[in-house]
Amino acid sequence: MRNVIVTGVARAAPAVVDQLAELGVATVHEAIGRAGYLGPGLRPIQEGTRTGGTAVTALCWPGDNLMIHAAVEQCQAGDLLVVTVTSPCSDGMFGELLATSLAARGVRGLVIEAGVRDVAELRAMRFPVWSAAVSAQGTVKETAGSVNVPVPVGGQIVRPGDAIIADDDGVVCVPRASAGQALEAARARVAREEHSREALAGGQLGLDLYGLRGKLAARGVEYVDAAQADHRDVAT
Amino acid sequence: MRNVIVTGVARAAPAVVDQLAELGVATVHEAIGRAGYLGPGLRPIQEGTRTGGTAVTALCWPGDNLMIHAAVEQCQAGDLLVVTVTSPCSDGMFGELLATSLAARGVRGLVIEAGVRDVAELRAMRFPVWSAAVSAQGTVKETAGSVNVPVPVGGQIVRPGDAIIADDDGVVCVPRASAGQALEAARARVAREEHSREALAGGQLGLDLYGLRGKLAARGVEYVDAAQADHRDVAT
Amino acid sequence: MRNVIVTGVARAAPAVVDQLAELGVATVHEAIGRAGYLGPGLRPIQEGTRTGGTAVTALCWPGDNLMIHAAVEQCQAGDLLVVTVTSPCSDGMFGELLATSLAARGVRGLVIEAGVRDVAELRAMRFPVWSAAVSAQGTVKETAGSVNVPVPVGGQIVRPGDAIIADDDGVVCVPRASAGQALEAARARVAREEHSREALAGGQLGLDLYGLRGKLAARGVEYVDAAQADHRDVAT
Amino acid sequence: MRNVIVTGVARAAPAVVDQLAELGVATVHEAIGRAGYLGPGLRPIQEGTRTGGTAVTALCWPGDNLMIHAAVEQCQAGDLLVVTVTSPCSDGMFGELLATSLAARGVRGLVIEAGVRDVAELRAMRFPVWSAAVSAQGTVKETAGSVNVPVPVGGQIVRPGDAIIADDDGVVCVPRASAGQALEAARARVAREEHSREALAGGQLGLDLYGLRGKLAARGVEYVDAAQADHRDVAT
Amino acid sequence: MRNVIVTGVARAAPAVVDQLAELGVATVHEAIGRAGYLGPGLRPIQEGTRTGGTAVTALCWPGDNLMIHAAVEQCQAGDLLVVTVTSPCSDGMFGELLATSLAARGVRGLVIEAGVRDVAELRAMRFPVWSAAVSAQGTVKETAGSVNVPVPVGGQIVRPGDAIIADDDGVVCVPRASAGQALEAARARVAREEHSREALAGGQLGLDLYGLRGKLAARGVEYVDAAQADHRDVAT
Amino acid sequence: MRNVIVTGVARAAPAVVDQLAELGVATVHEAIGRAGYLGPGLRPIQEGTRTGGTAVTALCWPGDNLMIHAAVEQCQAGDLLVVTVTSPCSDGMFGELLATSLAARGVRGLVIEAGVRDVAELRAMRFPVWSAAVSAQGTVKETAGSVNVPVPVGGQIVRPGDAIIADDDGVVCVPRASAGQALEAARARVAREEHSREALAGGQLGLDLYGLRGKLAARGVEYVDAAQADHRDVAT
Repeated sequence: MRNVIVTGVARAAPAVVDQLAELGVATVHEAIGRAGYLGPGLRPIQEGTRTGGTAVTALCWPGDNLMIHAAVEQCQAGDLLVVTVTSPCSDGMFGELLATSLAARGVRGLVIEAGVRDVAELRAMRFPVWSAAVSAQGTVKETAGSVNVPVPVGGQIVRPGDAIIADDDGVVCVPRASAGQALEAARARVAREEHSREALAGGQLGLDLYGLRGKLAARGVEYVDAAQADHRDVAT
Repeated sequence: MRNVIVTGVARAAPAVVDQLAELGVATVHEAIGRAGYLGPGLRPIQEGTRTGGTAVTALCWPGDNLMIHAAVEQCQAGDLLVVTVTSPCSDGMFGELLATSLAARGVRGLVIEAGVRDVAELRAMRFPVWSAAVSAQGTVKETAGSVNVPVPVGGQIVRPGDAIIADDDGVVCVPRASAGQALEAARARVAREEHSREALAGGQLGLDLYGLRGKLAARGVEYVDAAQADHRDVAT
Repeated sequence: MRNVIVTGVARAAPAVVDQLAELGVATVHEAIGRAGYLGPGLRPIQEGTRTGGTAVTALCWPGDNLMIHAAVEQCQAGDLLVVTVTSPCSDGMFGELLATSLAARGVRGLVIEAGVRDVAELRAMRFPVWSAAVSAQGTVKETAGSVNVPVPVGGQIVRPGDAIIADDDGVVCVPRASAGQALEAARARVAREEHSREALAGGQLGLDLYGLRGKLAARGVEYVDAAQADHRDVAT
Repeated sequence: MRNVIVTGVARAAPAVVDQLAELGVATVHEAIGRAGYLGPGLRPIQEGTRTGGTAVTALCWPGDNLMIHAAVEQCQAGDLLVVTVTSPCSDGMFGELLATSLAARGVRGLVIEAGVRDVAELRAMRFPVWSAAVSAQGTVKETAGSVNVPVPVGGQIVRPGDAIIADDDGVVCVPRASAGQALEAARARVAREEHSREALAGGQLGLDLYGLRGKLAARGVEYVDAAQADHRDVAT
Repeated sequence: MRNVIVTGVARAAPAVVDQLAELGVATVHEAIGRAGYLGPGLRPIQEGTRTGGTAVTALCWPGDNLMIHAAVEQCQAGDLLVVTVTSPCSDGMFGELLATSLAARGVRGLVIEAGVRDVAELRAMRFPVWSAAVSAQGTVKETAGSVNVPVPVGGQIVRPGDAIIADDDGVVCVPRASAGQALEAARARVAREEHSREALAGGQLGLDLYGLRGKLAARGVEYVDAAQADHRDVAT
Repeated sequence: MRNVIVTGVARAAPAVVDQLAELGVATVHEAIGRAGYLGPGLRPIQEGTRTGGTAVTALCWPGDNLMIHAAVEQCQAGDLLVVTVTSPCSDGMFGELLATSLAARGVRGLVIEAGVRDVAELRAMRFPVWSAAVSAQGTVKETAGSVNVPVPVGGQIVRPGDAIIADDDGVVCVPRASAGQALEAARARVAREEHSREALAGGQLGLDLYGLRGKLAARGVEYVDAAQADHRDVAT
């Protein structure tokens, strides 16, 4: 378990990442088999932003942002920095100055399973952030960790170079090797959804559109009129 | 414990529900005896919306939105869909397509003790939602549940047809049978509050307005000057 | 453990508090030695507000706001009311009417380790609030507590008269006796940060600006090229 | 929303409740259609106890146990007291003296969605308790609530007179009207499980015993040899 | 906000602390006015232990136990070490070796608002611990903090030299200056409770023993017979 | 993102795993560089058990244990089953019958980031379990997942065949390839600790044994006598 900074990491193709970003988190997550979602605990500090980038990962000690500084150097244009900690921590490990540094390198944003601060300033400079907390609590720079190793974030495994898509619904990770396939599948899904949207807007029911009436019957769900029902009896 | 879909449910009077909605959650909750509030865990995904409707309830399996589709068919104009799960779940069980379907039926909004997704799209289409989480995590449609049975939501019992009022303060449920009385009591409260507001804005103290000085004395609360007080001694 | 209302409390100097407020929570917290932050659990109900005031403290029973009414009388212009409870509580202990009363006295805002309600109205009247929850759940006025005693809030000790600074990052408490020193230290920090901001915006790395390369080496962090690395081997 | 104490409540048949108790929480919960479980938040303060009783319900204000005292009078031999609060509360609302009172009346135990104290004494007197917390924090007796009304507890609705079964797995509620049916179904389940236990102990697989191989295939689950698998490719 | 180690701290009288310990947490907490309880988040790792000591306090950085080592030197026979962190942390900051060191100095136990490890060994050596978590996660020794300053723990303020009492109900802090008074009040309470216990065991109701019937009536609580009650109407 | 069951997985050497198990979780975690700990959320349902095995992993849908049944077939003597879910879930996905099946195959125990039930029976049959919850809530068998793919558990990545060690402190994962090295390092640590234990038991201080006095001084920690200290001044 050496502490390492991995350099020269292969990235998902930028054009593919950008197109995935346009389709949004929920669509991409469904398209890859309902996988890769980093959970409801990572929330945007801004509203209405949809972006994507290739993951540079940093693994830090709680209350210590030394490895974020090391990770900045590994970031290039089109990347998105993904930070986690060795044990749960809500401290404000990232703020305006680090964002200035990342913005200067063309980094798309930050996903951090810990806290951020200077959120007024981050919003003003339009640097997108998804975090587990907002906290002004400062950190030290004392303890080693790693950069660009696979990290568990929000119940998923994120590997350096993976495509990270983020919007108001949260964050999804698409493995680098599957990004192309994911894009195709996501586009096909968008096409299908367009058709469903029209049908539903026109008053068709999902029960019919998706053929669910048989499922209800097969599972023994009964229709009961309220007038006949003794509410106590049918109550769960 | 059969799984049922109850049809033909009686609803609270629409005109009463609309007038309760105008008065807002906090006022209605106080008016019915500080009851019916669905707790701080249900938060709006939008700011500044105040609405109300009659409850259609759905009880789902975690990670499964089959019964939401069944519930849509039971919804009519003026309803508000109330969804809960058999065990805690943060998945995104509801999104833009289901909202399209509900909007087409004149449904007022959604209250869900689980997650929603497509929040950018939901805000854009102005479909109001109060949820326990925002999550892109998708769900399956495999397991039976019930529609229009009494459900526990946020530490309250919601019955089909009850009046549901929701705004930036959260959600309150008024039993169908008490909706008329609740409206009267809420209006009386608003009138009283108007008078209090003026008095307080004019500098009168709540201690005097509500006659609380005697209560403090009766409970042994003492006034101590800081100069005399050894802070250690009076500290709790 | 008598229940007391302490009067005539000494306050931090208003001019100092106002200048601390301009510098913001994160800066002040760092300037006093990474201390005094009231934690990520206290969130603003509004966006973009930065303010400060001298603490009047209230210690309440859960579900009971009797002592907030007692505290209002102890508040004067330039104060900021800080409320906590004897055991965890999310109820809406504070709303529009109490805010009207405080605004009439020139109070700067509210920090409460419990819930608030009427948030739409509070935003409309621009009364700033940082709270642990938003909840319409009403409270009674039955049980004694204290006003202007030291209280633990968010893992910090707040004493009456201390300087409280609050913005989008949360809330920080500066002990009354240290407020002057804190202001000097905070200004020095702002000056230093201005220099860092320019350097980082120009592309300099924090690794070099803060001299962190030696720290990484001293802690045994190794640089490994991805092409050579067996990812399994270096993974954490 | 009047505050009431309902007297003369009908109870589930004692003999049925006792037999359900012998079968245990998990079995009964399954037998009634995977329903009625009061959630993982209610934990026993003792190990190895399995009991059951008929519900007397109490709804209290947070930090206030006045209504528990009122509920005691409504308890008779074979009952089990079920307490909840109008908003979340971890205070120690129940202790040794109340247990002494309940034991004197032949009450089987306590289920409380709040805290208890004197746990060493409660264990010593073998009074069984399932609670959401252990806390020495004391409470007042000031605010009204209700006794023997339906209450939401742990995401379920408990009605006075329902059968409550509790053991190391937690607590389940069986509606009074369904208790007889539940017992039959639970016994049938026990018989079936006995057969399964033997088969599984003998080395048969659940995949075969429950006929799950077809389900896996139908859902597209593939078997892949590790030697052929590029772990990256098959990773989730 | 200097980091300091305060030496020569005055302690509560050992004989008083020992006698408070015998009376237990709940009794002492009530006797000092329902104050000083460190909350339900601090749980014992052992069952059936009741102890007390004078507080030596340590304030640590998350993931860093440097200051616990500094605190050990300040501990003397009869003390009880109280540890907290500058921001929430569940890491195992304390284990068997530190316990060996404290036991050698006659320290009574540990209260820590973070994690401990080696719990099997700690139980075997009968070193009592109350903690917020059990975690094997190790810590570093890099960052400064303080010893023997007032610290907020579990929503209370603990000052060096205060009496700390702990048992299966959790932990209570009695200010040094009030320890004698607290002992008197606690003894009086025990005497009163003995009388109540007998009355309640004999079948007397708390409603009568504490004179609560009038309170219920004054607050408008009505008795309703189940046969007359339309359950819907009286439901909360 | 295909759903797969990977067969023929390579395992860490059984003899190494058994020896790691004897050394315990905290020691092994430290020996591999303070890595691999699955966090304080996974707690044993029994006290005093220390075991180890090679990981078979299962990834399930919330509320659905289909893939646990598929995983049983992949288990062999000396394995330890590690189960997680695609989104947070506390349901009782595992009970006595599955334990009977695993015990028949010589499986060492279960680690599950969800709930278990039948805990009285599991304790009686001495089948060791570490889980995130105890819950009687039953599950369905409807939705596909994977077996023997890398899974994130408790903030760590667990790969099939890794060594899993578990005791009262929780669970640690040692990568298969590093198990031998880990054993050597752990033994060296035990030897060093033996020496420290004697020194500390004899009254030597950690401050001296680990050379920490210089660190305190270098970080500006000052010793202050309580008599001179104005407590307010040195307070944090």
